[in-house]
Amino acid sequence: MALKLYGFVGSNATFRALASLFEKDLDFEFVKVHMAGREHKTPQFLSRNPFGQVPVLEDGDITVFESRAITQYIARTYADKGTDLMMKDPKKMAIQSVWMEVESQKFDLPSHKLTIELYVNVLRRGQEADEALVAEFETKLADVLDVYELRLKESKYLGGDSFTLVDLHHLPNLHYLMATKVKRLFDARPHVSAWAADIVSRPAWVKVASMLQK
Amino acid sequence: MALKLYGFVGSNATFRALASLFEKDLDFEFVKVHMAGREHKTPQFLSRNPFGQVPVLEDGDITVFESRAITQYIARTYADKGTDLMMKDPKKMAIQSVWMEVESQKFDLPSHKLTIELYVNVLRRGQEADEALVAEFETKLADVLDVYELRLKESKYLGGDSFTLVDLHHLPNLHYLMATKVKRLFDARPHVSAWAADIVSRPAWVKVASMLQK
Repeated sequence: MALKLYGFVGSNATFRALASLFEKDLDFEFVKVHMAGREHKTPQFLSRNPFGQVPVLEDGDITVFESRAITQYIARTYADKGTDLMMKDPKKMAIQSVWMEVESQKFDLPSHKLTIELYVNVLRRGQEADEALVAEFETKLADVLDVYELRLKESKYLGGDSFTLVDLHHLPNLHYLMATKVKRLFDARPHVSAWAADIVSRPAWVKVASMLQK
Repeated sequence: MALKLYGFVGSNATFRALASLFEKDLDFEFVKVHMAGREHKTPQFLSRNPFGQVPVLEDGDITVFESRAITQYIARTYADKGTDLMMKDPKKMAIQSVWMEVESQKFDLPSHKLTIELYVNVLRRGQEADEALVAEFETKLADVLDVYELRLKESKYLGGDSFTLVDLHHLPNLHYLMATKVKRLFDARPHVSAWAADIVSRPAWVKVASMLQK
């Protein structure tokens, strides 16, 4: 088997890579990295990713890290398999590229901070929430979702008229936020809410989410 | 003239877009947006970029925002003009894509925070530095530069053996940091230091930097 994904169940970035492999219906070997044993900081792992982080994809003699680089590699290299994740028309691709940057530069930080605070610290560890931090990042996320609401009024998906990497890149943070009080920010915006319900119910994502239950 | 860049001299993101236009030796009109007059929040500007931010590129009937989407659009659409900013070989492009993500996910945040604190607040506004914040982000940046030093030992540029968008995306933050005490973090790493000196002296970047003097 040529494709090998090194990752950790519970890592948002690993889930992003897995979602793209499942959307493309590719055979791959999932190699669990023992984070608790600091396997990701061993010289052997650092030779795959010098930042010592998961996920890492190996495809024959190519090694790719950074989850969004992995998803792009998969989408480009296996363009003719499974779901089309990239627009083929160059003008449409330019617009997809804009919204991929929006996810990375605008959505990821507030949604990741809220996931760590409300899902990991509060729900999982039973800690008290840092309400000032939650308020700060909820305001930032709400501003982004206001723009998404406008966008999704005119376009079924964020990157264009079909599901692409743009939507896929949102899935891990979105999945966790839906289990927290931040869900109300999505519920308050009808087009955002319909979009979120649509993408979390995709079979490829359901497969990823089911790995968490095991 | 078909290409129009809306921007603001002093915006890192505008400089990133300008650098790519100069590298490609393209004719374009630079439309200065009056940020002080909040022109970027007018309905007319929001129709170009719903986030109300510069830069925005218009190319005929296409409108692109987010600086890294603009540079990718320019590099792809004008592939045969000026400097090659994207690797043509798919395997090399996969590696370039990894390091573009590294800039965006790992280099940008600490270097931007340090630029705001040490260049804008201290050097420009004469405020006292928040030393705890500086220490936190210097540590983060140093960790990234340690990896860059290893990478640049084996590769002349971060994305591969030639200058690409990866290096270009670093330029605005790099330019400002070189005027602060953070420069010592670059100086302490010989390959990083040679790379930084190389890329800031590119004619296209010198042109961008000269706009600051006007």
